[in-house]
Amino acid sequence: MADFSTYFTMSEADAIEYAKGKLDLFPKGARLSCREIGDGNLNFVFRVVDEDSGQSIIIKQAGPVARISDEFKVSPDRNRIEYEILKVHNELAPGLAPRVYHYDPVMNCTVMDDLSDHVIMRKAMIEHRQFPLFADHITTFMANTLLLTSDVVMNHKEKKVLQGKFINPDLCEITEDLVYTEPFYDCPRNDVFPPTRDFARKLLWEDEKVLLETAKLKFDFMTHGQSLIHGDLHTGSIFVREDSTKVIDGEFAFYGPAGYDVGNVLANLIFAYVNARQTMEEGPEKERHIGWVLKTIEEVADLFQEKFMRLFHERATERVARYPGFDKWYLAGIMRDTSAVTGLELARRTLGIAHVKDITSIADEAKRAEAERICLIAAKTFILERDAIAKGKDYLQVIRDSEARASA
Amino acid sequence: MADFSTYFTMSEADAIEYAKGKLDLFPKGARLSCREIGDGNLNFVFRVVDEDSGQSIIIKQAGPVARISDEFKVSPDRNRIEYEILKVHNELAPGLAPRVYHYDPVMNCTVMDDLSDHVIMRKAMIEHRQFPLFADHITTFMANTLLLTSDVVMNHKEKKVLQGKFINPDLCEITEDLVYTEPFYDCPRNDVFPPTRDFARKLLWEDEKVLLETAKLKFDFMTHGQSLIHGDLHTGSIFVREDSTKVIDGEFAFYGPAGYDVGNVLANLIFAYVNARQTMEEGPEKERHIGWVLKTIEEVADLFQEKFMRLFHERATERVARYPGFDKWYLAGIMRDTSAVTGLELARRTLGIAHVKDITSIADEAKRAEAERICLIAAKTFILERDAIAKGKDYLQVIRDSEARASA
Repeated sequence: MADFSTYFTMSEADAIEYAKGKLDLFPKGARLSCREIGDGNLNFVFRVVDEDSGQSIIIKQAGPVARISDEFKVSPDRNRIEYEILKVHNELAPGLAPRVYHYDPVMNCTVMDDLSDHVIMRKAMIEHRQFPLFADHITTFMANTLLLTSDVVMNHKEKKVLQGKFINPDLCEITEDLVYTEPFYDCPRNDVFPPTRDFARKLLWEDEKVLLETAKLKFDFMTHGQSLIHGDLHTGSIFVREDSTKVIDGEFAFYGPAGYDVGNVLANLIFAYVNARQTMEEGPEKERHIGWVLKTIEEVADLFQEKFMRLFHERATERVARYPGFDKWYLAGIMRDTSAVTGLELARRTLGIAHVKDITSIADEAKRAEAERICLIAAKTFILERDAIAKGKDYLQVIRDSEARASA
Repeated sequence: MADFSTYFTMSEADAIEYAKGKLDLFPKGARLSCREIGDGNLNFVFRVVDEDSGQSIIIKQAGPVARISDEFKVSPDRNRIEYEILKVHNELAPGLAPRVYHYDPVMNCTVMDDLSDHVIMRKAMIEHRQFPLFADHITTFMANTLLLTSDVVMNHKEKKVLQGKFINPDLCEITEDLVYTEPFYDCPRNDVFPPTRDFARKLLWEDEKVLLETAKLKFDFMTHGQSLIHGDLHTGSIFVREDSTKVIDGEFAFYGPAGYDVGNVLANLIFAYVNARQTMEEGPEKERHIGWVLKTIEEVADLFQEKFMRLFHERATERVARYPGFDKWYLAGIMRDTSAVTGLELARRTLGIAHVKDITSIADEAKRAEAERICLIAAKTFILERDAIAKGKDYLQVIRDSEARASA
């Protein structure tokens, strides 16, 4: 048997040995097979299957160095973070995250439910599939995890201890650089679609008002320990089935602004919308699909607020949080951050190093360029006008206005 | 020799043995004497003197339970925090904090400079003594410690690690309760001077606008990890000599809003002013002293901003902090918090459990009641109008207006 007492990056065969020797999840003598199915940047993902029963699990191992590029070296501690956050998510939003069975601090791996009967949502959205329960599921997930880890509800001392466990310097640095900094100047590490470059320069890089707002927002991200956020809640971190939603990839988790998660979901739904708008053939199917995506955007913003407020009134323990007017002020702050982060995510996925397939898969160059203009115009509006954007209909209005301006 | 391998609270004799056996600060065979000189709530303070050379040191030991009251039990980890913060202060503001020689995590004690040639500033202010260099010293201390530990200057990853070291649940809870919560309702733990009770009720407790602002500020205190703050920077935590200022008692340190420290200094200078106003005999000496205190208040606000801004431009490493307009926005936020905290400290020291001698030593009941009205009216203004209060002259104006309203 392999020696799992010091870290090494596992092969598929090692993962089988690991499952047999270190886990108690399969019957003795089970015939196990394994495939590495990771497509991500930071981890190896081993799917281990019992060939007889079909039962399967995932072993997710942090590589010694992030695969995203040689420039980003992130500590393998991120797998501990992911394990800890999965436990939190299972407790606060049961059914909306994979169950987690084991964490190994030496091999830096976590063992969890296999979700092979689900698909990554981004992929499904590019295939223009619909998930009618998604808005309901994801807003429950966000309202629960964001409110119940905040000082509104949690014992303040326990919250501080939890915050200490989720100090996450390496992964936060990635976000600080890739989301809040590089997309807003002509950074060599950006990956700008050539037809978009001049537009981006005029719209964003040369606008000091935009730059100043991104700076304020970056400091808010670095200093506002409001909720234990997922920190990377885009459609590539969500597994879906028609009847099920599972949030994964929580290695970016830390105590940050609650609106960061909500804004990420909304921005990535907007990417899905723009993809459908630019690539589907005109006709009732397109109408139906686009209608569903837009309704989902609207519902994510509105249901989140409804559920958050309801839960706030049910669960607030902090005396001063019950002072008249505090609830509205608190939620308004989260929605302001949500709008800003929607804008940041739209901009950074269009201009920065890490693109989304929703946009890059638009084969027609003019259509892709138009899609990027829509996203960037919307980005600027979401950032600059964040005080006035909160409701679902506000989001739809920004999308419509951006479309009009992008083709003007 | 006593067994220092498990914690016990030391006697004076134990402290001598400790100095002889565990420290290398006195010559072999020195004749040491010791007196416990603590007047504080949380610690035992042993002054150990070499009878021959006169050389002396302080051994500060955390008691197993805070002495403040049986209700507040704070972990002895606060002595580690104090040691760590003294190292930071010595590095960032050399000469403005006692040097620190030793920390013992078992006995929970810290060994540092003896400052017996200094006096506690609050005591000196009640004696109406003047310290012409104080404003210069304390603003250097605050500008340096608050800016240089922030994300404007510090490497963001190192800052997060430092923030983790200073997670301080027990001491933060004391502040959250005693400063941000209890003074703003008729809490049984408050200690309200009877002639002040009705005034406090009408002015503060029944004003929902005030309550809502205190709630927002409490959440800012709990979630805004801006700078490594001292956390208890009143005149009882500052040793002074005509030519020297030393900040002590850093056990409340954590990453919080920078304005918290500046506001504490200002509020406690206002207490000193009100004490002089109410207790000194009319005449040129009073004029002179009051003139100096008011000038010091003005200078603390203005010199802090000057030095902070200069240091910002010299030392900012964060790219986005150099965007046009960011410096002003950032400092304006600190000054807004400063005003609010000035108000909170004025209110809590007047109504809450922990009073200041500047006020309680005013023997004449009517004069004390007037003093408290001045402090509470100013408190409300500093909280509600914090957006418009930043400059030294703004502080003086609030004081003058509050005096006029208190006697109207």
